[in-house]
Amino acid sequence: MLINQKLVDKAEALIPELQTTSVKPSRLIEAVADETAFQGWLTQQVMSLQEWKEQSYGKGDSFVLDFGDHLVGYVSISLKSVGSPPDAPLKLKLTFGEMPCEIAEPFDSYNGWLSSSWLQEELMFVDVLPAVIKLPRRYCFRYIKVEVLDTSVKYKVAFEDIGCEAVSSGDLARVEPLPSGMPEDMQAMDRIAVKTLQDCMQTVFEDGPKRDRRLWIGDLRLQAQANYLTFRNNDLVKRCLYLFAGMRLEDGAVAACVFEKPHAHADDTRLYDYALFFAACLFDYYEASGDRETAEELWPIAYEQLLIGLRRLDDRGVVVDDCTWWCFTDWHSELNKQAPGQAVLLYCLKRGAALAARLEKAGEQAYIAEQIERISAASLTHLWDEEQGFFVSGADRQVSWASQVWMALAEVLPPERNAELMDRLLAESPSIGMTTPYMYHHLIEALFLVGRKDEAVARMNAYWGEMIEDGADTFWELYNPDDKKLSPYGSNLINSYCHAWSCTPTYFIRKYLV
Amino acid sequence: MLINQKLVDKAEALIPELQTTSVKPSRLIEAVADETAFQGWLTQQVMSLQEWKEQSYGKGDSFVLDFGDHLVGYVSISLKSVGSPPDAPLKLKLTFGEMPCEIAEPFDSYNGWLSSSWLQEELMFVDVLPAVIKLPRRYCFRYIKVEVLDTSVKYKVAFEDIGCEAVSSGDLARVEPLPSGMPEDMQAMDRIAVKTLQDCMQTVFEDGPKRDRRLWIGDLRLQAQANYLTFRNNDLVKRCLYLFAGMRLEDGAVAACVFEKPHAHADDTRLYDYALFFAACLFDYYEASGDRETAEELWPIAYEQLLIGLRRLDDRGVVVDDCTWWCFTDWHSELNKQAPGQAVLLYCLKRGAALAARLEKAGEQAYIAEQIERISAASLTHLWDEEQGFFVSGADRQVSWASQVWMALAEVLPPERNAELMDRLLAESPSIGMTTPYMYHHLIEALFLVGRKDEAVARMNAYWGEMIEDGADTFWELYNPDDKKLSPYGSNLINSYCHAWSCTPTYFIRKYLV
Repeated sequence: MLINQKLVDKAEALIPELQTTSVKPSRLIEAVADETAFQGWLTQQVMSLQEWKEQSYGKGDSFVLDFGDHLVGYVSISLKSVGSPPDAPLKLKLTFGEMPCEIAEPFDSYNGWLSSSWLQEELMFVDVLPAVIKLPRRYCFRYIKVEVLDTSVKYKVAFEDIGCEAVSSGDLARVEPLPSGMPEDMQAMDRIAVKTLQDCMQTVFEDGPKRDRRLWIGDLRLQAQANYLTFRNNDLVKRCLYLFAGMRLEDGAVAACVFEKPHAHADDTRLYDYALFFAACLFDYYEASGDRETAEELWPIAYEQLLIGLRRLDDRGVVVDDCTWWCFTDWHSELNKQAPGQAVLLYCLKRGAALAARLEKAGEQAYIAEQIERISAASLTHLWDEEQGFFVSGADRQVSWASQVWMALAEVLPPERNAELMDRLLAESPSIGMTTPYMYHHLIEALFLVGRKDEAVARMNAYWGEMIEDGADTFWELYNPDDKKLSPYGSNLINSYCHAWSCTPTYFIRKYLV
Repeated sequence: MLINQKLVDKAEALIPELQTTSVKPSRLIEAVADETAFQGWLTQQVMSLQEWKEQSYGKGDSFVLDFGDHLVGYVSISLKSVGSPPDAPLKLKLTFGEMPCEIAEPFDSYNGWLSSSWLQEELMFVDVLPAVIKLPRRYCFRYIKVEVLDTSVKYKVAFEDIGCEAVSSGDLARVEPLPSGMPEDMQAMDRIAVKTLQDCMQTVFEDGPKRDRRLWIGDLRLQAQANYLTFRNNDLVKRCLYLFAGMRLEDGAVAACVFEKPHAHADDTRLYDYALFFAACLFDYYEASGDRETAEELWPIAYEQLLIGLRRLDDRGVVVDDCTWWCFTDWHSELNKQAPGQAVLLYCLKRGAALAARLEKAGEQAYIAEQIERISAASLTHLWDEEQGFFVSGADRQVSWASQVWMALAEVLPPERNAELMDRLLAESPSIGMTTPYMYHHLIEALFLVGRKDEAVARMNAYWGEMIEDGADTFWELYNPDDKKLSPYGSNLINSYCHAWSCTPTYFIRKYLV
């Protein structure tokens, strides 16, 4: 890893104080199997909070608290014994769920490829009662299931209080209310998107506060764009940029993600598109903040990312597609990444050129401009299929949504033809579709870009609006209206149900619809 | 509960500082099923400590550390990741075992009537690596099984260190070495008994540091007797006496056991024999310490216990045997408690009379003496069966070991006939036998009392000596050489393998054999 300690130190000096909010549960519920419900689970109230406090629980008893909204924070439990003095420890199991499936389906059933350690549960032994237990880990949940695994024959346990200190570095007071004329469905979508972003804003912009709880540059780019129009915590973006800049892979590429603990360190994951996004993120940050000092200091690293990206071009000016790279783009197992990768390169070169212009780096600006011209031409020559009217990708000339969306965002075609490309995409709907809100974001962004505002809004409603219909308190990492149990990880239990890259409806609403 | 805060405060002022000792594991072992081994499990070394530190462990891997001796204390774990930066929490399961069965047989199989919360296990999530984890709970173990339930596909975990800060209020430096001529088997038995006592000596004399981890007066009496000849921590006995004296049941009876946390409080368990033992404990304490001030202060409570015990006599002078009482005596499901209860009353009255004499309480001494005479006579008239040559108990005139042993200890018969009673007991061996080291203790004590020293030593060897053969590092709560998986609780997993009432070989050796 290449460490620039000065940059890392600047990042660490920007660790924010988190705001805390005390939240109490609102009711007790049970999850009820219902094939018509999202993922097969409804919730229904079984008891009020006051009734719950009067219960006592023995071996084998359990209950589920509903906090009424998505939370990220620290949980405290006050509990006492009922009956004889407790003559054995209390054994409890806690399960935290963002969604009903997590408290309804046993975690033992999980057999996916992501670590089962992400499933939020605790086995607890309480040696002394009464007790106030402050759980040391941070959880991400709306529901808590409490199972009393054992007391003893001589006592039961009663719960006096369970609460959450919710945390975020996003201050809701800084978010402007939407104009009063905004339709209610848009108001709701904005509110949920803002909540999604807020819950992901911790000491970095996390991708998901349940999983993976860390800073990915692909998520950062979208979070930062939403943040500039909502929480306006520019210092948090700055911290994240310095983290990526301060710790790079051996060849100078920005890592795909960064960990904060026990000390800041970069992951060894390299993603072609994510490294390039550093330049786009820095451009966006400068545009939003006007912070020239940071832009100047980080420009060489942004420029270096563009140069590293360019090295992947073959003689024709097309990115090499082989087994040596990973370009993220989307979680679609059959998606070829050549055309989307080419488009991301162009997209980022264009933002790099604009930033070079702002910073008066004439030589670098000129060099980037040359490359843009060369690659744009190569894209049209080698990746554009005139007969189909689509960009194709890879040796098999795959036609995917991702390729068209990213080429549209890269503005390879002139505006009118770019709009026609999007129209054709929607009309013909190629079979290699989109699987994540991250990819859907780029579709919506492309539709707004080419002036198809109504279509963009319709698609937002059909996607994020449908998530709301399906019970989203915050927007999800993964959503396919046609396959609601979809998970690329082997189980929807481990999906993240508050995920950064899904927060952008507020960005679209505030940028294009206000 | 009757609280005398002044007495409780005196007890709390005597909370000892615990001595700590750092202990490291000695090797890695596996438990191997072997029908010929104690409880069916052998252990064998699989790796040295140095080899273990060079391993890395992934999902599904596990190992068992052997610390080489029984320990009570706090465990720390130093661990680090191997491979890529850890991108998911580490999920570990720890299982602590005093005995191989605990790390070999799954706790899920436990279905006994004591709380499963006593089984020592932890499910742990480590969010940040490397880490040094100090587990907050106290464990009682020789073996630790570590199961790596999950890491992620990107990393494994390596263990740099696992150690234990062992704790006790028994200072081994105060224990006199045995004379050098003492046979090796007696040296070993003494050493293990002293270790048993030491591991039970915490901020009170606990019955068992694994289970139940609290102060019972039946155990206290034997621990104190062993302590006076070994650790000589008289203040710890004093603290325990003040705890029992300061918190009594509604009618003034001393409770059977006391809890320390979150504040000192008495259990609601009432045992006929245990309450009476308060007087015997105070007598023993005064004899050992000469602490007249404490004896004076607690005498009224000791005397009251005798009066409460006397209230249970019927017109004939025999304790009433019905469903309203519980006299512990031993864990034998068919044992009738009338004769043993009667004998314990006499035994304690005699110690009460002696203490009254020391404290010059002439009136009370005279009253107790009258009662002794009356009850001794009643015992011979109503409970002695001249034809069988045994004491009988209950409506069914049961002949048990416990009745004879306790009547011998109460010295109802003159010395020669008392010795003959013990000879007859050993010769005829009534079918209602003994199930605990607690009852065995009283058998041995009775044999020494009546001058049958060789028989006492032979029985010690046949019982505690056999435990050593079976692998005891400390002496056990329960042991039946003829049924080595015996547990009154439904599973030997939950038996305590370091138990106060089993520590008395050191008392016998140092009192009668040095």
